[in-house]
Amino acid sequence: MAEIRVIHWGLGAMGGGMVRLVAQKRGLRSVGAVAKTPQKVGRDLGEVTGLDRKLGVKVSGDVTEAVAAAGDDADLVLLSTASFTREVYPQIIEAIEAGLNVITIAEEMAYPSLREPQLARKIDELARKKGVTVLGTGINPGFILDLLIIALTGACLEVKRIRAARINDLSPFGPMVMKTQGVGTTPEEFKRGLENGTIVGHIGFPESMTMIAEAIGWELDRIEQEREPIISKVHRETPHVKVEPGMVAGCRHIGRGFMDGREVITLEHPQQVHPDLEGVETGDYIWVEGTPDLNFANKPEIPGGLGTIALAVNMIPAVMAAEPGLVTMADLPAPRAIMGDLSRAGGRR
Amino acid sequence: MAEIRVIHWGLGAMGGGMVRLVAQKRGLRSVGAVAKTPQKVGRDLGEVTGLDRKLGVKVSGDVTEAVAAAGDDADLVLLSTASFTREVYPQIIEAIEAGLNVITIAEEMAYPSLREPQLARKIDELARKKGVTVLGTGINPGFILDLLIIALTGACLEVKRIRAARINDLSPFGPMVMKTQGVGTTPEEFKRGLENGTIVGHIGFPESMTMIAEAIGWELDRIEQEREPIISKVHRETPHVKVEPGMVAGCRHIGRGFMDGREVITLEHPQQVHPDLEGVETGDYIWVEGTPDLNFANKPEIPGGLGTIALAVNMIPAVMAAEPGLVTMADLPAPRAIMGDLSRAGGRR
Repeated sequence: MAEIRVIHWGLGAMGGGMVRLVAQKRGLRSVGAVAKTPQKVGRDLGEVTGLDRKLGVKVSGDVTEAVAAAGDDADLVLLSTASFTREVYPQIIEAIEAGLNVITIAEEMAYPSLREPQLARKIDELARKKGVTVLGTGINPGFILDLLIIALTGACLEVKRIRAARINDLSPFGPMVMKTQGVGTTPEEFKRGLENGTIVGHIGFPESMTMIAEAIGWELDRIEQEREPIISKVHRETPHVKVEPGMVAGCRHIGRGFMDGREVITLEHPQQVHPDLEGVETGDYIWVEGTPDLNFANKPEIPGGLGTIALAVNMIPAVMAAEPGLVTMADLPAPRAIMGDLSRAGGRR
Repeated sequence: MAEIRVIHWGLGAMGGGMVRLVAQKRGLRSVGAVAKTPQKVGRDLGEVTGLDRKLGVKVSGDVTEAVAAAGDDADLVLLSTASFTREVYPQIIEAIEAGLNVITIAEEMAYPSLREPQLARKIDELARKKGVTVLGTGINPGFILDLLIIALTGACLEVKRIRAARINDLSPFGPMVMKTQGVGTTPEEFKRGLENGTIVGHIGFPESMTMIAEAIGWELDRIEQEREPIISKVHRETPHVKVEPGMVAGCRHIGRGFMDGREVITLEHPQQVHPDLEGVETGDYIWVEGTPDLNFANKPEIPGGLGTIALAVNMIPAVMAAEPGLVTMADLPAPRAIMGDLSRAGGRR
């Protein structure tokens, strides 16, 4: 198997991390890049993503140019530009038209047929026609609160109810994340932020719940979501935000999936700065009520940025090997770290 | 999709449990059974497996008869007769020749090409020729100490070392398990039992380690195993065995995988009766040293019998959908509980 030739579309914190990870992996090669920031266009990809060496790949302003510069034989795009299917749809279509497989970390693309069934169908049809595969992934949605839960139920005779929580620390993140999670606001500002859409909480609960339900054969008849402020009792501070007692340290986002009127899936994602200051232990928690009961915990939580970068890159071989079409994480073999030389991998299939 | 028609080969504790589970699942139907115990042959399958109803399926003494009795259109065999590839090989060949897909819980079949590369190749070739799929699975090997570890590394940029432990309680098991784990022996008897092969400990560490290594692209150059007695400090007792202080309460089995002389995979499986009496907390533990580190725990452990029964039955749809040939758990989509009606499942593929 030859090297897999990758184009990076979107060079923010996530996309840039993927460039650095691909540079470490044998059998993967970055052959093109697309950025919208004018300061990045025209420069070397290694340079703009903080690598200590040049990659010999010039950052382009659009994908057609990047594909052509890669000699028209790139294999796959890592797409890290936005969160919603509607936003990335034209980019995915452009990539498919260019004959490229697509892995995107757009949260809604973890299960796009839920909110955008028509766009999902169009992506699926075009991907099949062009013989490429399109996958949405990331730490969450894409792994901790969906695929991992699905896999764990494989050891159960029966599942009655699923509860899971991802309790994380937002302290390392920048001003944009503070804003969308409402960190540093007053309770009144938080309420207004939710109403006017500037505070969004987590994106992906309906997608995760639907992916779980479809995989195990449940039919959800209703999904509810709640977002409430995490009011701090203590002073909390990061380089980007100060939270005084009585102010908002983060957003507790809860998703609830109902079947026959009964709450069968509950996903919780309280995101805040410095949860340690109030004795909150961060971690990923999965409880399955069934036969047998399961009680999984990973402490501390898998860091979101690293996990998302890892999953996007680690899924490349599975996407390359998959049948054409639009797929979810539940359709493909389980993810796995890439530690060997992919171009030497035998593969029995 | 029509119902999936299942033949049960082997009706012991595991095989019998699979019959009872299949009876609960919509879209699966038991259409045949094979037992070697003469007292079971000729009787109704529901009756001999402790169901409260007859299944209208007569237990056969051999598979040819069972296949014919099922009207020659069975889809898959659940094979629960033995632990080693060499033992189940003729049965697997017979099933493939009859056009049946095969799921077996024979431990070595989790990764049969390790110890029986020639038999594995023959199984693979014949399965491809006949258009069927053959899978080995179970709680361990097959899930906790291999597939689950593999899946978790998917969230890692890099993996340096893997350690995992499955600390379980043997108290519910019968006299056969007590014997193969050396429970109730003196330290001297334990030593002799290891030497003469009557005490075996866990079967499957080399298979699990090789499956992990292949999946993430490591090449192990050496695998070592240790089995040592767990000497009890206290009186422990089950309906089948008594352990006095100074006697053996179980077997601590350790597997070590080396790459370039460095121990990169360590799997531990201390199996004993009543670990609680000495304050040992049972559970499934996975630690990955890498970027990031992972620290998973499931307490208490997934019960081995339930988990094995569940995985064998839950993998049926994935095996039916897979490409023909011999596969491992790492080749297929992640397992998942079957809670819906499989005969109604849409499936985009």
